[in-house]
Amino acid sequence: MRTVVPLDVTDAKSRLAGVLDTGERRVFAAAACRDVLDAVRGAGGDPLVLADAPLETGADPGDGPSPFAAIDCQVRVDDRPLTAAVQAAVDEALDDSPDDDGGDAVAVVMADLALATPAAVERLYAALDRADVAIAPGLGGGTNAVAVAEPAFTFDYHGASVRDHRAAARAAGVEPATVDSYRLAVDVDEPADLAEVLLHGEGHAADWLREAGFELATGAGRVSAVRE
Amino acid sequence: MRTVVPLDVTDAKSRLAGVLDTGERRVFAAAACRDVLDAVRGAGGDPLVLADAPLETGADPGDGPSPFAAIDCQVRVDDRPLTAAVQAAVDEALDDSPDDDGGDAVAVVMADLALATPAAVERLYAALDRADVAIAPGLGGGTNAVAVAEPAFTFDYHGASVRDHRAAARAAGVEPATVDSYRLAVDVDEPADLAEVLLHGEGHAADWLREAGFELATGAGRVSAVRE
Repeated sequence: MRTVVPLDVTDAKSRLAGVLDTGERRVFAAAACRDVLDAVRGAGGDPLVLADAPLETGADPGDGPSPFAAIDCQVRVDDRPLTAAVQAAVDEALDDSPDDDGGDAVAVVMADLALATPAAVERLYAALDRADVAIAPGLGGGTNAVAVAEPAFTFDYHGASVRDHRAAARAAGVEPATVDSYRLAVDVDEPADLAEVLLHGEGHAADWLREAGFELATGAGRVSAVRE
Repeated sequence: MRTVVPLDVTDAKSRLAGVLDTGERRVFAAAACRDVLDAVRGAGGDPLVLADAPLETGADPGDGPSPFAAIDCQVRVDDRPLTAAVQAAVDEALDDSPDDDGGDAVAVVMADLALATPAAVERLYAALDRADVAIAPGLGGGTNAVAVAEPAFTFDYHGASVRDHRAAARAAGVEPATVDSYRLAVDVDEPADLAEVLLHGEGHAADWLREAGFELATGAGRVSAVRE
C-alpha cells in the first residue's frame, strides 16, 4: 500500500531541544524516519517521504551532508502546512494507485514513530478490512497513523487531531476502525519518549541514542533516559 | 481466565497529588479499577482484586463509605509488597484453576488501566497461543498486564520491570510474546495520563473526570487535561 511518511526537515524534533542539540535532533529524526521506512517496507508497503524541504537542506558547513540525505526512499517535497501537504499526497495516491484488492487505499505514517515494526504497520493496513478509515491514535491526541480507502475523508492535523479525524471519517460516511498499538502510539516528541525508544526500540534511532550515551534511569515512577 | 487485579488502597494514585486531592484520588482509582473489571469480565475473564488493605480502609469520617467499597468483585487482601503479593496469588491460581484448554493459565492486569477494553484484554489472553508468557508493556518500562501459563515464571515489579519480566520468562524457558496495545500501555499514574482518559476512555474513570470538571486543553504539542 502506498504509505506517505511526513517528515519535518526544517525544524526537526524541536521539543527535544532540552536534551539534544540541533544537529543531534536532525540525526535522530533521520534515524527514526529510517526505522519507519523499514517497518513500512517490512509490512509490504510502498513508502513515500513527504518532506517540508529537500533532504539536503540545512546541512551545517563543516558537518558534512545533511543526515536526511541518507534516507533512501522516493521523496516528495511540499512546503505547505502538514494538513495541506498530506491531503494533496493522499489525493494523488488515491487517484493513481489501485491496491492489491482492486480498490484504492493509502496510508499516512508519521516519520517519528521510532518504535514502529512491520507487525504494527501490518495491523494498520489490515484494519481496512474492518472500515474504510483506520486510525492509530498517538499519545496526547495525535493521529500517528491512518489508512484510508474512502476518498471523501479529509485530514486535519491541528490540535487533538484524533478526534477531528474520527469526526472526518463519520462525515465521509465511515465509522472508523481504531488500531490499538503502543508502537504506533508513541511518537518521539518529548524527552520522556526517549526512554520508550531505549526500552523497546530495535532500529536506527535506538542504536543512535545508545551510541550518543543515553541510558535508562530508574526511580520511583516511570524510567527516564539520561546521559552523563 | 483467572485475572488478578492488583489495587493500591492505602496510597492510591499518589503521583496525581498535584491535580487531585486525597479523596478524589481514591474515587478516581476506584473508578479505574471498575473499568478494568468491566474489561476483564467483557473478555470472559474471572477477576480477583488483590488489595493491599481491606476495601473499607481509610474512609474519612463524614465522607461516607470508602469509594473502594463500591467495587463488586472477589477480593484478596495481602499487605506485602506488590511482587510478593502477586506471586502468591498467581501461584495459587495456577495450582487451582484449570483453564478452558485443560492447562493452567492466569493473568495479572493492573487496576489503573482506565483505557482497558474487552478487546484489549482478549488480545492479552489470546497471546498465550503464541507463548506461555505474554507481556503488555506499560509506558516508562512498567509491566501493565501479563498472562502466564508457565509456573516457573517469577514476578518482579521493581524498576524497568518489563525488561526483568522478559528475562524471567527466558529464565523459565519461554520466549515471551508481546501484546502491542496502547490501551494496555497507559496506566494512569501522572497528570498527562488524564488527557488520555478524556480522549479515549469510555467508562467510569472518564465519566468521573468529566464530572469533576476536567477537559482537554490543546496547545502546540500534546493535549493536556485541565480544570478551572
